[in-house]
Amino acid sequence: MSFRGVLVPVVTPFTPDLKPDRAKFAALCRHVLSQNAAGLAVFGTTSEANSLSAGERRELLEYLVDNGVPAAALLPGTGACSMTEAAELSEHATSLGCGGVLLLPPFYYKGVSDDGLFSFVDGVIDKVGSASLKVYLYHIPPVAQVGFSVELVGRLRAAHPDTVVGLKDSSGDWANTKALLDAYPEMAIFPGSEVFLLDGLRHGGAGCITATGNTNLPMIVELFDTWRSDGADALQDRITAIRMVFQNAGPLVPVLKAFYAHVTGDDGWAVVRPPLMAVDREVARGVADQLEGLGFTFSAPRAA
Amino acid sequence: MSFRGVLVPVVTPFTPDLKPDRAKFAALCRHVLSQNAAGLAVFGTTSEANSLSAGERRELLEYLVDNGVPAAALLPGTGACSMTEAAELSEHATSLGCGGVLLLPPFYYKGVSDDGLFSFVDGVIDKVGSASLKVYLYHIPPVAQVGFSVELVGRLRAAHPDTVVGLKDSSGDWANTKALLDAYPEMAIFPGSEVFLLDGLRHGGAGCITATGNTNLPMIVELFDTWRSDGADALQDRITAIRMVFQNAGPLVPVLKAFYAHVTGDDGWAVVRPPLMAVDREVARGVADQLEGLGFTFSAPRAA
Repeated sequence: MSFRGVLVPVVTPFTPDLKPDRAKFAALCRHVLSQNAAGLAVFGTTSEANSLSAGERRELLEYLVDNGVPAAALLPGTGACSMTEAAELSEHATSLGCGGVLLLPPFYYKGVSDDGLFSFVDGVIDKVGSASLKVYLYHIPPVAQVGFSVELVGRLRAAHPDTVVGLKDSSGDWANTKALLDAYPEMAIFPGSEVFLLDGLRHGGAGCITATGNTNLPMIVELFDTWRSDGADALQDRITAIRMVFQNAGPLVPVLKAFYAHVTGDDGWAVVRPPLMAVDREVARGVADQLEGLGFTFSAPRAA
Repeated sequence: MSFRGVLVPVVTPFTPDLKPDRAKFAALCRHVLSQNAAGLAVFGTTSEANSLSAGERRELLEYLVDNGVPAAALLPGTGACSMTEAAELSEHATSLGCGGVLLLPPFYYKGVSDDGLFSFVDGVIDKVGSASLKVYLYHIPPVAQVGFSVELVGRLRAAHPDTVVGLKDSSGDWANTKALLDAYPEMAIFPGSEVFLLDGLRHGGAGCITATGNTNLPMIVELFDTWRSDGADALQDRITAIRMVFQNAGPLVPVLKAFYAHVTGDDGWAVVRPPLMAVDREVARGVADQLEGLGFTFSAPRAA
C-alpha cells in the first residue's frame, strides 16, 4: 500500500542552543496526524533535514516511534550524498517499520549522468536488501540541482517495481509533474506543492507533500477529500491564495517557523539552524494580517 | 604555521565492492608525501569525500594517522551541510593533530545569505572550541554552488583571526583569486588548480591544492620551488599543458583514477563510487598517449 493523500514535511523545532527539540517535534507530529495528514514526510527540505547529522536523524526517528507516532505513517527523508549513508538511513527507517523513505539524489556532484544516478539508487536499494523498503524519489531541482529525469524514473521503476513506488516532484514545473503522471500511472506521484493538488488528482496523482501542510493542512485535506465535487476549483483557488501569502513573504522555512512563533506566542518555534536565518517578527505579523484578510484560521499545535 | 606549498587532494581508492581500500589509500598518501607534497588535502572533491559517510571519513583518517602519515601533514575536508556534522568531523580531525581542516560551505540550501553562512562557520568554530583548530575555507562554486564571497571571508577572518587562516579557491576564476590575495595578504590562499600557481605566487599565494597533484606532483613542486627563476613561465606553460590533457579528457576524478589504473596495470584504481562512473579504458590510454607526446613521466604509487 502506497501513501495517498496529503503528507506534511514537518518542521523540526530546535532549542535556543540549536539542538533538536524532540518532545516538541513529536507533539507536532501527533498534532499533524490528528488533522488527518496521510503521512509525515519528516526530514524533508522544510524539516531542515540536511542541517541534521545522520545520527540526529536516526535518534529523532526512534524518538517519534517511541512516542506515539505510528511508524507506518512516517516517510522520512533518508537521502545523503553518500551511498553508504543513504543506505544506512534507509535501512534504519525500514527496520523501524516506516511506510517508506523519501530519497534525494546525491546532490553534491553536478553534471553527473543518469547512469551514475541510477547506480546510486540501485546501490542503496541493494544495500538495504529488504522487501519492506519502499522508495519515493525526491525530485527538487531548484535546491538539489541534481534531479531524477522522467526517463531515469522509468529505469529505476523497471529495475525495482516493488520498491520504487512513488515520487515527490518539487520541480514547481507542472509540465514535468504531468509527464511523470502520464508515464507512470501506477506510481504514487505527489506534487511538492498544494498549488498543483487538483491538477495532480485529475491526472491520477496521489495527493501532495507540501511545506504549507504545516499551516493549512485541514483545507488541503478537504480538497483531497472532495476534489470531484463542484466546489473543487474554488477551494483550490483559495488554497493557492493562502499558499502564496507564505511563499511570497520570504524564505519559506523561516517564514513557516516564524508564523508558528507568532500564532502560538512561543518564540522557540522561530529558531532555525544556520545557514538558514530566522526572519523578522514583522514578517510573521504581515503574513498573519494577510491571512486574516483571507479569513484563514490556524489550528496551533499544542505544547509538548 | 599555515600550510605552504603544493597540497594534494588524494584520490580515495575503493575495493571492487565499493568499500574504501584503506591500506591502498595510506600507501598512496605516503607516496605523495615522499614526492614532497606540502600536505594531503584528503577528503576533497577529488577524493569523493561526499561519497563517504561521516563514519567512513573518521575511520580512514584514524587509519592514516596510525599508518605512517604524520597528522600535521593532513588537511582533511570536514565540510557537511549539517553544522553538527561539520563540527564533529572538525573536532575529530583537530583532536588527531591534523594541520588544519578544509571546510565546505553547507551546500544543500541555495540562495542563503552571507549572514547565514557566517553563522554556520562561526557555529562550527565555536562548537569545536579549540585553539588548535585551523580552518581553510573551501570555495568551489562550480560544484557546491554556495560559496564564500570575498566580503564574507573578511568577516570570518575578522571574527576568528587565529582560526580562519586559509582558503582554497576552486572557482577557476583568477579575478576572484586575485581579489582574495589582494584583500587578505596574511591568509594562506591556494588556487584550486596548478594553472594559477605562478600567478598566485606572484601575488602572495601560498601554493596550490590541486587534483592533478595526484599525477604531476614533482613538476608542480618544482615550479613552487623555483618560481622566481627565469624558467618559471616556461615551466608553468608545460604544467598547464599537462593539466589540460587530464581536464579535457572527461570528468576529472574518474579520469585520474583510470589513468592510475592504466599506468599501474591495477584495474582497482579505476573504481569510483556512484554517482560518479568509471570512464572507458580508452580514455586513459588516450591521456597516456598525449602525455607521452609531451614527454611526461609518471611516478606510480607502489602497491600497499
